[in-house]
Amino acid sequence: MMLENVLQAVDDGLDESLERLFSLLKIKSISTDPAFKEECFKAAEFLVEELNGIGFEASVRKTSGHPMVVAHDKGNEGSKKPHVLFYGHYDVQPVDPLNLWDRDPFDPQIKAMEDGSKRIMARGAADDKGQLMTFVEACRAYKAIKDDLPCSVTIFFEGEEESGSPSLDDFLDANKEELMADVALVCDTNMWDRNTPAITTTLRGMLTEELVITAADMDLHSGYFGGAARNPIEVLSKILGQIKDENGHITIPEFYEGVLEIPQDVKKIWDNLKFDEKAFLGSVGLSHPAGEKDRSVLEQTWTRPTFEINGIWGGYTGDGFKTVIPAKAHAKVSFRLVGEQDPHKIRESFRALVKATLPEDCGVEFIAHGASTATRLPFDSDFLQKAKSALDEEWGVKTALSGIGGSIPVVGDFKNHLGMDSLMVGFGLGDDRIHSPNEKYELSSFHKGIRSWVRILDKLAS
Amino acid sequence: MMLENVLQAVDDGLDESLERLFSLLKIKSISTDPAFKEECFKAAEFLVEELNGIGFEASVRKTSGHPMVVAHDKGNEGSKKPHVLFYGHYDVQPVDPLNLWDRDPFDPQIKAMEDGSKRIMARGAADDKGQLMTFVEACRAYKAIKDDLPCSVTIFFEGEEESGSPSLDDFLDANKEELMADVALVCDTNMWDRNTPAITTTLRGMLTEELVITAADMDLHSGYFGGAARNPIEVLSKILGQIKDENGHITIPEFYEGVLEIPQDVKKIWDNLKFDEKAFLGSVGLSHPAGEKDRSVLEQTWTRPTFEINGIWGGYTGDGFKTVIPAKAHAKVSFRLVGEQDPHKIRESFRALVKATLPEDCGVEFIAHGASTATRLPFDSDFLQKAKSALDEEWGVKTALSGIGGSIPVVGDFKNHLGMDSLMVGFGLGDDRIHSPNEKYELSSFHKGIRSWVRILDKLAS
Repeated sequence: MMLENVLQAVDDGLDESLERLFSLLKIKSISTDPAFKEECFKAAEFLVEELNGIGFEASVRKTSGHPMVVAHDKGNEGSKKPHVLFYGHYDVQPVDPLNLWDRDPFDPQIKAMEDGSKRIMARGAADDKGQLMTFVEACRAYKAIKDDLPCSVTIFFEGEEESGSPSLDDFLDANKEELMADVALVCDTNMWDRNTPAITTTLRGMLTEELVITAADMDLHSGYFGGAARNPIEVLSKILGQIKDENGHITIPEFYEGVLEIPQDVKKIWDNLKFDEKAFLGSVGLSHPAGEKDRSVLEQTWTRPTFEINGIWGGYTGDGFKTVIPAKAHAKVSFRLVGEQDPHKIRESFRALVKATLPEDCGVEFIAHGASTATRLPFDSDFLQKAKSALDEEWGVKTALSGIGGSIPVVGDFKNHLGMDSLMVGFGLGDDRIHSPNEKYELSSFHKGIRSWVRILDKLAS
Repeated sequence: MMLENVLQAVDDGLDESLERLFSLLKIKSISTDPAFKEECFKAAEFLVEELNGIGFEASVRKTSGHPMVVAHDKGNEGSKKPHVLFYGHYDVQPVDPLNLWDRDPFDPQIKAMEDGSKRIMARGAADDKGQLMTFVEACRAYKAIKDDLPCSVTIFFEGEEESGSPSLDDFLDANKEELMADVALVCDTNMWDRNTPAITTTLRGMLTEELVITAADMDLHSGYFGGAARNPIEVLSKILGQIKDENGHITIPEFYEGVLEIPQDVKKIWDNLKFDEKAFLGSVGLSHPAGEKDRSVLEQTWTRPTFEINGIWGGYTGDGFKTVIPAKAHAKVSFRLVGEQDPHKIRESFRALVKATLPEDCGVEFIAHGASTATRLPFDSDFLQKAKSALDEEWGVKTALSGIGGSIPVVGDFKNHLGMDSLMVGFGLGDDRIHSPNEKYELSSFHKGIRSWVRILDKLAS
């Protein structure tokens, strides 16, 4: 049987797959640091060579920043096969502080753990070189057994994910036709746990806003004016302190418009995940869920909107004490959004509420930062169901349908620029230490990740 | 009549008095800048010479910082005359930004104004060299007519007032006997307006405190944890936002214990002052008193306690946006205190309130800064009544009995170290630009200030 042969090829070729991954991991493609510009280019060229080597038509595409890589599976033009766009990024996070690494972050190594598991140790092992190579190696194995892939595949790698993807929007717009597919496959996500794969179906959107409360037209001495002059820090505190009520509900009028309840059957799946709230909170020194009182932690972080104060400053913040009543007080706030919440409408409602509660003599300036709607793959999507069944078969357990409380910007970009949904499947783990010293990727994630993509490609074509 | 002769001597000698003041103003005695250490010493020596010249026994007293000047009127030991300690400071504020000065700050000049008034222009003209010289020149005039002063006078100048008086406490303790008097005369204050003298009778005390709210044991990503993790900035905002109610009353239990209502007759005097609330607030771009709703602005700033947030910080405060939930949030807060409020009791009550309203998973650290009780000269004090009547006579109007919302540290120090009340009389004006470029002192303040001290010394001995 064809599929079994391909999976066997994956197993037989694992050592060579690892060698190729190590070659990529050795390239210091740190995108935020201009000193590593050449290394980023080298990583893009390496991937182009690899992809050309297994029968893709791949090329380095220059941008004003680091280059993109685009590769098409030859000979599938005009076929009736489902067309997928696989996305990954070849750039990595900086490595400092270097002294916290057990070894050279760009000298990858397999480390055997006491429990018998093995880890690939290197910067980028999990984020995102190891993840993207699972897909490349799946294609290689397929092509080694049969010339043709079951789906029509376009591969798209960027090299600026860790530095805010400044070239991405323009590139998507300029290459719309070439990149458009039936669905995007985004691999930048985690498993549920080391034995349970996951498909991420919801990502929260976000609204970020900065506000400046003004009062007197200069800083005042609290001895002379204290008691009679409005203190903008106090005004800011009162305003921000009232955005959530004692039950954790957000008090902005019509804020919850567009918030969707998840279907009962999905809720059931989530309940079966037996998410360990205590361990989750305990990992950062907390023990009590602080959000809406009538919601579980999974709901609080996946499917419920939030309000956060991400920064606040005003007055004297140095050593010692100054009895100043400042002229201004500042805060950066954000809302995580879900379902069909409209960030622009919420921005207006928030501003209206602030203005309405502003006392006499105070002004407010707003500075709009980003805004994005929540994204979700419908639970009844055909792609989702097929990928789930492929993952169920590979891992021998029920695949988790999970959410992510944050956002993966490229998923929103694919939706907004190309009108394309994303199927988010990745094999990272929560303890992979991405962005931190001693980043790792489980060898099992790499190996079974390759096998998983073989099965998913096969299933999507069925 | 003796008094008239002394006043005539003041008038006749005004030009020479000004020359001596100018000599002092030319000395660059900036106490905060070590580069001017020698100049500070020069100012102290100049004053010692002047005082010795008019018959005091004066000396420079070294400290670990800038020297003190102590001078005793000879031949009054053991007399029955009232004994006064006159306090002033010879050091001045730095002068930068120099380009905002119309002329060299250390080259004093008389400037004639369009309204016919004249101003002494120089750094230190009002704060405090011009003020302290009114007293020295009053003594000189007295001694020119009659060898003896009507009171037993000790003069005490420091040179570190503008840099926090680091040597003062120790010096007072070490020279208690020598400096002790029946009352201190402190000249570092203002008139009510250019035609109305004032005696400051109340100074608010102060309690300063820093608090740090802690939640998770590290900064968190608001995508991953947002909705479930406690945000310490939000906790801090809620706590600080609740310290005052909608009427401006402070909600800390027993906070108002020891707050005294001012006597009806003093209230009447204040009403007659016709204080211009609009102009006061308007000078800094405000128009509505923000304090307790049932109190006038004079009460709000002179005789009512306050709560202020003087500084706040936490999370990301740089350019752009970071979706962080920080581990900590900080604030510096202060209370102005009046009457017999006990700062230590209030510190405890504030801390107890914060702790009681702290949600689960949060901690708080407190850092105690300064604490001082309010000081006041009883309205029925004999010294106060005599000085008032002397000022009434000199200026031909009713002297204002006023308050100061801030504190004059030396007044508290005299009370605490020497058990001595202070009679606060000065001839500065609100627009003297002390601490700012183009500092000035009204020539009328200097001239009639000297005459006022002649009358006060005369009256105190009566």
